[in-house]
Amino acid sequence: MNITKTEKSRIEEVDFNNLTFGSVFTDHMFFCDYKNGAWQEPQIVPYGPISIDPSAKVFHYGQAVFEGMKAFKDDAGSTWLFRPEENWERINKSSERLAMPAFPKEFFFKGLETLLNLDNDWIKAGDGNALYIRPFVIATQPGVSASPSDQYRFMIICAPAQAYYSGEVSVLFAEKYSRAADGGVGFAKAAGNYASQFYPTNLAKERGYQQIVWTDANSHEYLEEAGTMNVFFRIGDTLLTAPTSDRILDGVTRKSIIQLAKDAGITVDVRPVKVSEIVAASKSGELKEIFGAGTAAVIVPFKSFGHQEKDYELPAQEDSYAARFKKALKDIQYNRATDPHGWRYEVK
Amino acid sequence: MNITKTEKSRIEEVDFNNLTFGSVFTDHMFFCDYKNGAWQEPQIVPYGPISIDPSAKVFHYGQAVFEGMKAFKDDAGSTWLFRPEENWERINKSSERLAMPAFPKEFFFKGLETLLNLDNDWIKAGDGNALYIRPFVIATQPGVSASPSDQYRFMIICAPAQAYYSGEVSVLFAEKYSRAADGGVGFAKAAGNYASQFYPTNLAKERGYQQIVWTDANSHEYLEEAGTMNVFFRIGDTLLTAPTSDRILDGVTRKSIIQLAKDAGITVDVRPVKVSEIVAASKSGELKEIFGAGTAAVIVPFKSFGHQEKDYELPAQEDSYAARFKKALKDIQYNRATDPHGWRYEVK
Ligand SMILES: Cc1ncc(COP(=O)(O)O)c(C=O)c1O
Ligand SMILES: Cc1ncc(COP(=O)(O)O)c(C=O)c1O
Repeated sequence: MNITKTEKSRIEEVDFNNLTFGSVFTDHMFFCDYKNGAWQEPQIVPYGPISIDPSAKVFHYGQAVFEGMKAFKDDAGSTWLFRPEENWERINKSSERLAMPAFPKEFFFKGLETLLNLDNDWIKAGDGNALYIRPFVIATQPGVSASPSDQYRFMIICAPAQAYYSGEVSVLFAEKYSRAADGGVGFAKAAGNYASQFYPTNLAKERGYQQIVWTDANSHEYLEEAGTMNVFFRIGDTLLTAPTSDRILDGVTRKSIIQLAKDAGITVDVRPVKVSEIVAASKSGELKEIFGAGTAAVIVPFKSFGHQEKDYELPAQEDSYAARFKKALKDIQYNRATDPHGWRYEVK
Repeated sequence: MNITKTEKSRIEEVDFNNLTFGSVFTDHMFFCDYKNGAWQEPQIVPYGPISIDPSAKVFHYGQAVFEGMKAFKDDAGSTWLFRPEENWERINKSSERLAMPAFPKEFFFKGLETLLNLDNDWIKAGDGNALYIRPFVIATQPGVSASPSDQYRFMIICAPAQAYYSGEVSVLFAEKYSRAADGGVGFAKAAGNYASQFYPTNLAKERGYQQIVWTDANSHEYLEEAGTMNVFFRIGDTLLTAPTSDRILDGVTRKSIIQLAKDAGITVDVRPVKVSEIVAASKSGELKEIFGAGTAAVIVPFKSFGHQEKDYELPAQEDSYAARFKKALKDIQYNRATDPHGWRYEVK
């Protein structure tokens, strides 16, 4: 691996108590180019603009996938990742669906850890503080014909982040627009899946909602996931969430919560969740919580949901599952609790 | 508009008789940046790499749309576009769906025409020769949070092209994978729509097909369009094509063929086309042609189609609609025929 260190760190310019999510990047970035059928020598260089042909396939045909992960610093100064192998596997699943080459495991971990060590000062201890890590792959071959690229760039960039506070979140259940088709790429972290949500989300925002919970494109009868979070429903003391499919992202936070719930003896029903049953459970008072789950925000409790011009408030909870799982997850992530499933991964 | 001319044209290095589609670009490119809520001063500069932040939203969230058009040179040396206003309107429709700002008409035409005049020598006369024109817009704001960019770049790049010969084309009717969801972005020329087709198309290629004809994602019972072409079916002497919808691109070639067919007194049925009726018509001998229609290839007759492990040959046609419409379209495009609908647009 070639490493070129920055001549002057930018860390002094950064106010770590006033960070906008994903907008300030650390001193270095990792990249590795794919050409002639092989990944080339990986590089770490100072963070900065890249030079790319305007006909590069990523700009025209959207061959681009990404991941989102976090590094946490414990009070003793050690740095931890959370289930990083899942992200490595998933970026390759996403790549496969977009006809892009897999990135080798050794390159992924070597690049990631070397980068985290180099920019270690950017990872701050303290509850809620983390380094948000963004691995991604883009198609760099020049040429405007609609076929897979034969050149790619894998990159990792990192942004320090504070506890994610999203305010009170009201969500809208989708009725007209949709996020993913059966047989499509919804399960992949493909760049194009996100741009397509912005316009419907803007319309929802105009109506006073912060996010959309997507429903199946065929009937809009089943609840699937939010823009960057999987979604859980608590009816009585049972936790409900949609099964993953080719339309739904297989979230690391989601699968960790399912495990934590099982560990705690909570019944988890992973099955299609009907809009009508959630509305009915809200009316009958059995619906206690809905929350989103994803790496960036960990867990976001929803305050209310909108469906067909009506809004349904969610009751305040004394002992909420959302708060309980958030604490349990963070305790593992920050190395404050035992880790029975071996989810923590120390950066050495 | 700021214009910086190249110091040395690359045109002498180009073999205009051996062009790979979309791989060689003219001397100049047009661009215009959007920031602070407004499109800035447009620029023409020598063709070359652009510098862009690795966190630019186009790389992560796929906010990118494009167009495809052609310029034709007639034997007297005049340059013509074909229905360019349609492309300007459509790129803005695509942009709207991806929460991107519209590009003003005057900027579009001024940029396009100035660029074509500057690179006029790259447009070669002669049947089949054309300049392929690629306007596109990408999201350039740095930042890895999933929300619309507040900075964009509109660009036009151009690639000389010869007559498109795709060989004999066998297509596969999609049964498992799909291209677009109801309520999704299939009608837009959004970058992400293309990457998602590459993997299923590779699988089809392994089975000996060149392209996929997509069917509706819900039932796979209705034929929609191909990767970069709308699709027509000729049963007896009637022409059939699917209606446009939020899943199907409203192709300029498609709408021109519908008009030409009507002008020629041919019955055109624009209605959902069932897979089962095409299979039945093939068996009964009534199915005479299937062809794709799009700017790059104009019209591509299909030789056979595959459906559920079976292949169906299409009969050779003496007086094929595909050949007839292709000639009629090209005669208008190259200024060799009258232009009753005012489709030709002279670049002055
Ligand atoms: C569409 C989508 N769903 C769900 C998630 C949550 O996944 P994870 O918990 O792995 O971050 C994300 C974000 O990563 C996402 O982009
Ligand atoms: C998905 C898709 N369908 C159809 C077409 C044909 O449209 P047009 O005739 O306007 O080129 C294209 C190409 O432009 C396309 O990308």
